[in-house]
Amino acid sequence: MNSLLNRIQSPLDLKNLTLEQLHQLASEIRERIVSVVSKTGGHISSNLGVVELTIALHHVFDFRTDRLLWDVGHQCYVHKLLTGRNDRFESLRQGGGLSGFPSIDESPYDLFNVGHAGTAIATAVGMARADAALGRSARTVALVGDASIVNGVAFEGLNQAGILKRQLLVVLNDNSMGIAKTQGGLAETLARFRLSHLYEDVKQKVKSILNAVPVVGRGVVGAIEHLKEGVKATMAPNQIFEQLGFMYVGPVDGHDTQHLIELLELLKDVETPVLLHVHTQKGKGCDWASQDPCAYHSPNKVSLEGGKATLAKDAGRKSWTSAFADCFLTLAKDDPRMVVLTAAMPDGTGVNKVLKELPAQALDCGIAESCTVDIAAGMAKAGLRPIAAIYSTFLQRAFDQVFQEVVLQGLPVGFCIDRAGLVGGDGAVHHGYLDLAYLRPFQNMVLMAPADENELLACLTLGRDLDRPYAIRYPRDVVPQPIGPATPFVLGRSRLVREGRDATILAYGTMVELALAAAETLAAESIDVRVVNARFCKPIDDDMVTTAITRGGPVITVEDHSIAGGFGSAVLEGANRLGLPTEGVVRLGMAENRFYSHGSRAGQLAEAGIDAAGIAATIRRLIGASRASGAATTPIERTPTRRSD
Amino acid sequence: MNSLLNRIQSPLDLKNLTLEQLHQLASEIRERIVSVVSKTGGHISSNLGVVELTIALHHVFDFRTDRLLWDVGHQCYVHKLLTGRNDRFESLRQGGGLSGFPSIDESPYDLFNVGHAGTAIATAVGMARADAALGRSARTVALVGDASIVNGVAFEGLNQAGILKRQLLVVLNDNSMGIAKTQGGLAETLARFRLSHLYEDVKQKVKSILNAVPVVGRGVVGAIEHLKEGVKATMAPNQIFEQLGFMYVGPVDGHDTQHLIELLELLKDVETPVLLHVHTQKGKGCDWASQDPCAYHSPNKVSLEGGKATLAKDAGRKSWTSAFADCFLTLAKDDPRMVVLTAAMPDGTGVNKVLKELPAQALDCGIAESCTVDIAAGMAKAGLRPIAAIYSTFLQRAFDQVFQEVVLQGLPVGFCIDRAGLVGGDGAVHHGYLDLAYLRPFQNMVLMAPADENELLACLTLGRDLDRPYAIRYPRDVVPQPIGPATPFVLGRSRLVREGRDATILAYGTMVELALAAAETLAAESIDVRVVNARFCKPIDDDMVTTAITRGGPVITVEDHSIAGGFGSAVLEGANRLGLPTEGVVRLGMAENRFYSHGSRAGQLAEAGIDAAGIAATIRRLIGASRASGAATTPIERTPTRRSD
Repeated sequence: MNSLLNRIQSPLDLKNLTLEQLHQLASEIRERIVSVVSKTGGHISSNLGVVELTIALHHVFDFRTDRLLWDVGHQCYVHKLLTGRNDRFESLRQGGGLSGFPSIDESPYDLFNVGHAGTAIATAVGMARADAALGRSARTVALVGDASIVNGVAFEGLNQAGILKRQLLVVLNDNSMGIAKTQGGLAETLARFRLSHLYEDVKQKVKSILNAVPVVGRGVVGAIEHLKEGVKATMAPNQIFEQLGFMYVGPVDGHDTQHLIELLELLKDVETPVLLHVHTQKGKGCDWASQDPCAYHSPNKVSLEGGKATLAKDAGRKSWTSAFADCFLTLAKDDPRMVVLTAAMPDGTGVNKVLKELPAQALDCGIAESCTVDIAAGMAKAGLRPIAAIYSTFLQRAFDQVFQEVVLQGLPVGFCIDRAGLVGGDGAVHHGYLDLAYLRPFQNMVLMAPADENELLACLTLGRDLDRPYAIRYPRDVVPQPIGPATPFVLGRSRLVREGRDATILAYGTMVELALAAAETLAAESIDVRVVNARFCKPIDDDMVTTAITRGGPVITVEDHSIAGGFGSAVLEGANRLGLPTEGVVRLGMAENRFYSHGSRAGQLAEAGIDAAGIAATIRRLIGASRASGAATTPIERTPTRRSD
Repeated sequence: MNSLLNRIQSPLDLKNLTLEQLHQLASEIRERIVSVVSKTGGHISSNLGVVELTIALHHVFDFRTDRLLWDVGHQCYVHKLLTGRNDRFESLRQGGGLSGFPSIDESPYDLFNVGHAGTAIATAVGMARADAALGRSARTVALVGDASIVNGVAFEGLNQAGILKRQLLVVLNDNSMGIAKTQGGLAETLARFRLSHLYEDVKQKVKSILNAVPVVGRGVVGAIEHLKEGVKATMAPNQIFEQLGFMYVGPVDGHDTQHLIELLELLKDVETPVLLHVHTQKGKGCDWASQDPCAYHSPNKVSLEGGKATLAKDAGRKSWTSAFADCFLTLAKDDPRMVVLTAAMPDGTGVNKVLKELPAQALDCGIAESCTVDIAAGMAKAGLRPIAAIYSTFLQRAFDQVFQEVVLQGLPVGFCIDRAGLVGGDGAVHHGYLDLAYLRPFQNMVLMAPADENELLACLTLGRDLDRPYAIRYPRDVVPQPIGPATPFVLGRSRLVREGRDATILAYGTMVELALAAAETLAAESIDVRVVNARFCKPIDDDMVTTAITRGGPVITVEDHSIAGGFGSAVLEGANRLGLPTEGVVRLGMAENRFYSHGSRAGQLAEAGIDAAGIAATIRRLIGASRASGAATTPIERTPTRRSD
């Protein structure tokens, strides 16, 4: 089994395989992906769709010197299997194992670590320009999906690529479905076109041209011109690309290896930008994955027992994503002003549930985060109360829209930031470690975080009632058990959740649960820790800061975020503004200059020292040092404390 | 003079004017703009290009209830003159006067404060969707330029607008030139098309259709269909917009008021998205402005003496922008790896000079900041040493590209951030007050700032030699006189520029000049101030922080940036990491929750308390308080200090 795949040590080993062997290889690759990814979790359907395309690309080009740029990073599994990583494939997305995205640390065949879509055409333009400047003859190929071609950066890249006077091949992998249904006018054009099922015609025409025209004799360009003419009459979406300066070819069947190889051979040395439009089927070759490509886009695990695929469920506890959907629905069902928008992440943000239950109050704008935030701003301007539900890492793509269209206007747009903090298997390209730092300097922005589901509802309620921008963050994780009775969020007010005399933890968002667990552990060691649920990063609760610092003992800030510019930094700035000493403040979070790799979220929290054990260890060390140095172990309360809730 | 314009109190006053009066009004508006803007400085050419278009829009629509969204904010002067602000127009861009951009505080006719292009279509979609949701019948119009239509956000907006099933009019104001020559494949298509000068044909066809078809009887849509058919055969750029779901109409002459009004009347109630392509001439009606629209894009002042236009020069001192161009050329002329990229700001960044002298080493990518950074990343990956020269406020648009394509790969891309800090007349939409906060959490990013031109060259030299991302910031201002002999930048090392015993100023970048001036002032009052040129915000100089804090006396950090998350925050974080007290640290910069309006940069620095007088006043207050409280006026040096350079 996998006898052929096991012999592929590098893409060079593909070159001499017969067409029949390539077909066998494709079949072995599919088997390998289904068998491994059903255990590790990861992106199944999309990778099954690009098996033949990836084989054909590596067969025709030599990506030791040519450039292959992946736009949709999670489609790189086949590429990994063909570039010497088959033997490590079982370690996919596991700590210390292969990344689920292209990774420059794994292989020289991976040029960029990418997980945010839309960028490959622009980086391809950059590489092509540099190769030209340095006199290299490397060919450049960018592989882009139909969901990401509608992204603004992809369009900007096409617009720049169109004026290149040299080879550059953009392969548009069109499966009529990104992570969710592709959105927008261009998607509709592609869809109309797709319905006409023309690629069989194209295939016949290409064949007849290839047979009729002696390519070597007449030159490749002549053949291409014939190809184009033959194809054009019945084609539609060529124009948008041709107006951007591309030669458009397609659409062609992305599962016909022979045809793909013939075409790529023909196109590879065309000295002008070419867009090759390829139709593929998500989940191809696997019944359950192709029948429900959304469900199998990026499952955790799949049970294949008894020949039947079943999605592994989380162990019964509710995710923050589901909690958001439920909380939003609770408020929105009686308030038609409330609308939730997302950017191609309806499943990952809970918006799918709203689309089902309150379709008029939900909108998926596709992989277009900038546009999503601007549409939300327009809605707010016209009287709605929109919420943009976007992952932390993807909200980065709308930073300037948050600035100009929301903050500068003071509009009441909410940002519900899922995947804030360490994200587990998706790793460095997807950690949400910057949102507090980049949102905190914005004038009048309210930053809050819930510690449990009751608090999420309280955050949303406060946000709805505020007449200004606000953001709420929560991680890719299950919701903690309620940390106490539900109480409303009051702007800029923290909540004391545990009294204690030896140290104070100021915990932000879901860190409260871990801080409480650390306090429990330490209690058994006679270290009595006070825990405050900070609730707000902006405005920071001055009373919380004052009380924590003036009562003495170490003050530990804990955040699932970079310690540069984040919650701990807000505490330092607050203390500085209040004229309070900060030597006793210790900030825990993601280290400023470290990249956190893929693996389990629990492992990553431990690596950052912000799991319960890490928090406890820090406090133990601080208390130990303080006791060893003879400082007062029972701090005197220098000012009367008041509960800061 | 201006007799008609003076009678226009609101756009309603336009409705009853005859065509002849509208022509007169256009002429008066041109006169008014030239006369005022030549004194105040501001955007001349682009506003002269949209006189008839703006008149026609206000004549046909009622923007008390309909929505007019400006994409190119600086084109709003005519709109301001027609919406009750003629009498205040002399105060344009002056402190306390009218903004040079749409301003929600000035008029309900201004819906968004905008200065970053490309966003109006998306906000229009949001407003249109909200109006539909709330059952309002408001019409929506977005006015977009040909330079900003190539922006990714604009494309995303078009893609979303194309699927609206209701009225939405996008007017594409095509003058074949944005701020600089419009870039990219789409621009070339528009240009090819423009060369064919077809709009006279269109005009004739529209006229004949309007005459032949009884519009009321047959219905507007029928008339439109005829119009489209009549126009289509000879048209080209329709396809790209039609494939996005728009009905395309045009191009038409944007200076023919009558024709524009007829067309807009016909189009205003079409229940589907329409793109109206209008050709205009930048600087129209003013010889000198139309002959050199780049030079007169946004001049400071223009002398009109003797009927001859002369650009007012800065008072002889060199700008940071020019200094950057010279420093870059110094290094790049012997190093073909060095390339500078910009995003439609070749004049404003100094890249125009490089385009002239080393054209192979400069690239203008148009209003596409995201793409610009990605192209730079691709170039770096392939061995070049690219620098992205982008204003601070516009680099916000590439935040995620800085993250993914540069920081995550550790690529040696430089960012030369012009317009960092307070920008003067352009005001709140353009202040560069966030760059330190949003770049500082990035792993291994180097943030530095020069205090004079020698230091800018030293920054660039260090940047070239680092194998990692770096950013250099400088303001829209003249370069200070050399603050001392030229010395190289050493990673993470500050430079002591003045000894003193009573207080320490840690100044970042051009704040050094002002800190020294403050120290001079205070010296006359027997307050002896030490001044450190911090040079780096990341990595922060630990020795600088340690010395400043441990020697005693107040420590004042000064930055031309928000105090939230910026340089002062980096000092606090450094001190906290080093276990040093921070009560004596006072951070000066832009207040966290305040918007700084337009006016002179000097006035803005004073408002933020970071001009020489403001810095001196702060120190005077701190020293006074300290002396009054009986604290040691002559601080004891608790550790041996060493010069931190």
